[in-house]
Amino acid sequence: MPELRRNLATGEWIIAAPERAKRPDQFIKEAAARKRVPRHAAECPFCEGHEEQAPGEVFAIREKGSKPNGRGWEVRVIPNKFPALVPSEVSGLNAYRSRVGIYLRIEGVGNHEVIIETPDHQLSICTMPVAQVEKVITTYKERYLTLDRNPDNELIIIFRNHGERAGTSLPHPHSQLVTCPIVPNSVRNRMLEGVRYYDETGMCVYCDMVAFEVREVHRVVAENDDFVALCPYASSVPYEMWIIPRRHQASFGEIERREQHGLAAILREVLGRLHQALNDPDYNYVIHTAPHHSATVPHYHWHLQITPRLTTPAGFEIGSGISINISLPEQSAKHLREAAEG
Amino acid sequence: MPELRRNLATGEWIIAAPERAKRPDQFIKEAAARKRVPRHAAECPFCEGHEEQAPGEVFAIREKGSKPNGRGWEVRVIPNKFPALVPSEVSGLNAYRSRVGIYLRIEGVGNHEVIIETPDHQLSICTMPVAQVEKVITTYKERYLTLDRNPDNELIIIFRNHGERAGTSLPHPHSQLVTCPIVPNSVRNRMLEGVRYYDETGMCVYCDMVAFEVREVHRVVAENDDFVALCPYASSVPYEMWIIPRRHQASFGEIERREQHGLAAILREVLGRLHQALNDPDYNYVIHTAPHHSATVPHYHWHLQITPRLTTPAGFEIGSGISINISLPEQSAKHLREAAEG
Repeated sequence: MPELRRNLATGEWIIAAPERAKRPDQFIKEAAARKRVPRHAAECPFCEGHEEQAPGEVFAIREKGSKPNGRGWEVRVIPNKFPALVPSEVSGLNAYRSRVGIYLRIEGVGNHEVIIETPDHQLSICTMPVAQVEKVITTYKERYLTLDRNPDNELIIIFRNHGERAGTSLPHPHSQLVTCPIVPNSVRNRMLEGVRYYDETGMCVYCDMVAFEVREVHRVVAENDDFVALCPYASSVPYEMWIIPRRHQASFGEIERREQHGLAAILREVLGRLHQALNDPDYNYVIHTAPHHSATVPHYHWHLQITPRLTTPAGFEIGSGISINISLPEQSAKHLREAAEG
Repeated sequence: MPELRRNLATGEWIIAAPERAKRPDQFIKEAAARKRVPRHAAECPFCEGHEEQAPGEVFAIREKGSKPNGRGWEVRVIPNKFPALVPSEVSGLNAYRSRVGIYLRIEGVGNHEVIIETPDHQLSICTMPVAQVEKVITTYKERYLTLDRNPDNELIIIFRNHGERAGTSLPHPHSQLVTCPIVPNSVRNRMLEGVRYYDETGMCVYCDMVAFEVREVHRVVAENDDFVALCPYASSVPYEMWIIPRRHQASFGEIERREQHGLAAILREVLGRLHQALNDPDYNYVIHTAPHHSATVPHYHWHLQITPRLTTPAGFEIGSGISINISLPEQSAKHLREAAEG
């Protein structure tokens, strides 16, 4: 029998209907589907030695003595060449609301950056050394803190698209960062859900979830000193995972050096398990963090959400906002725990 | 320059970034992409003469004298063979909330029905005669009113998935209906957005939008006596359309006979224009209607939303809930107005 489950942190209901899955191995990608990729690609604008093909870097982790926009980098951040939003320093525009008839609009003011994770064209997070993943996380934090100083940036979204079904076209390993001049509904709703829980219980709902899931065990995929990775009770999609810091912190900007290592290690591990369990499926991940003005609230808690792209949302999902998940998170977590680490 | 636009009815912001489109004709499907389909398919469980392959019908429009579950039907409604939710009459379960540790759950109680729109395997809404589309709409209303009598059905979602990217596997023309035992967040948020507007202005936001857009003209795709079809100011995706009744009505159950004809005519017309403009793209449509207990409120207004599946939402959309639309609704509407009707 299908069941409805409510996500305690977001307030969203989902329908768990594993009977609708076609066969137990339906999510495993066919072996031939992904083609071999070289370590360096002649036409790739993100490969080392092609720095002049992309916009100039705004940040990089580099070998000592190497020059900006030349060789010798380990992680490199550049403005997106086809940006969704443009910084006001570039456009000269501001992020004030204005009216168009009965509607509201804002100029497309914001930063849209690409974080090139490694010079090696063929790697991915789960095939890099942990030390390299840690450099990526360090870069996330560095850019987060820098961009958070601009009062126009109400919210900073760091995300990664892996594979075509996840919306990426460039295979070179990279993440992205977008800063928004508004707090969108979905984020406001999560904050409100969190504050409601806090007012009732005096607790952070994410802290409570971590404590509960660690006791329950069967939805936990991996743990280390600073993080827990789990398949949420009300997962929207098969193999959805949340990586949650054990220490309460609303904003990703609060992450400490030791935690950066822990995040790199658990992220690499669970993406490795996902890769092994399903043969390198497409996925997105995103860091959900508090908006600028809520950076220290007791009722929100940043976390990294991994969304494998294995199924297609259809009309029902568009109309209701309710996801139909044809797998159970308990089963996904078991499969991931039993898979190799990478 | 990109811009942010706020949807007045839903409160959602979107980013309009037409500069990110690869080329002006990027949305037009390649001619060879869709294969020829026969009028009757030997292996199709929805074709006439195969009635015994599917569950027994719960409603049908039939030739006089024809028997249930036999030949002679024009539109036919059956329970979904792989349902997302199961009626309590079948499962013996009820839709009460219960606790699983710190979480809430509900048994998967509800109706999940398939509306087979015609015995002809190869048709679609935009290639059927209007009279046939009207029979489909009549069937929607009939099932809506019947299922709305069950107090477990807080919300009724009627939707259609067209093509693989829209999540359908069976090509035979069909719609679906799901009844939910809860009001999900996304619907509650639309109601709250509507009530906020109503409290400020004394008006229904959808009525105001229709009046404004009809005066503005350039986002309107089609009009008749009872309906207006438009590309919303803050469309989430290229070629998104909303069909809105001119007469204020919160619930789809309120639609009158004359309006059923008007809805059939405008739906067929705009889907025909979409088909002609983009060479039969995949799409979903869904009827957004008020929950059962808000059926007569002055601040909500049912409407049919058409979502073409031309782009892939990625990590930014998952993290922020903000869609990046690489087209402008003004341009989509112009393209659709200039296309043939079918």
